[in-house]
Amino acid sequence: MMPRYVAEVIGLLAGSCTTISLIPQLLRIRRSKSARDISLTMFTVFGIGILLWLVYGISVGSLAIIVTNAASLLLAIAILVLSIRYQHGR
Amino acid sequence: MMPRYVAEVIGLLAGSCTTISLIPQLLRIRRSKSARDISLTMFTVFGIGILLWLVYGISVGSLAIIVTNAASLLLAIAILVLSIRYQHGR
Repeated sequence: MMPRYVAEVIGLLAGSCTTISLIPQLLRIRRSKSARDISLTMFTVFGIGILLWLVYGISVGSLAIIVTNAASLLLAIAILVLSIRYQHGR
Repeated sequence: MMPRYVAEVIGLLAGSCTTISLIPQLLRIRRSKSARDISLTMFTVFGIGILLWLVYGISVGSLAIIVTNAASLLLAIAILVLSIRYQHGR
């Protein structure tokens, strides 16, 4: 087993990647004004999952889980809103 | 603070949602044979993040984190492969 702090650093890197990954998708929809290929079901269920991760983070008192999931939730909502707007393309 | 087992159930639900959410996106690309609006950068960085979550799950010995992220990783790779194939539409 690796030391706990190494695991926590990996967790923080993991959370940063999964959160930051949403930014290029958001920018792409915003730039192209098209979201025909985006699944609204995906980002709805994904958003609910992120909300539950946020509740989980609060309940176990993990600041890393709270911060990364709060940011992910905002990004997922923004993607969902833009995707609804541009679902049928420009 | 809620009991630890309640938090773990919420975490399991959260992981199920974020994993299952990838299925409709995969099916949508497969059906439409188009992935023009999908950000390859998103699913690449997302996949790296999921891989790191998997390493985290192994290092802290959490079966729930291991199982949900292993499934997410396979789905994210499938979305990425199909997105590269159909990036310019049919």
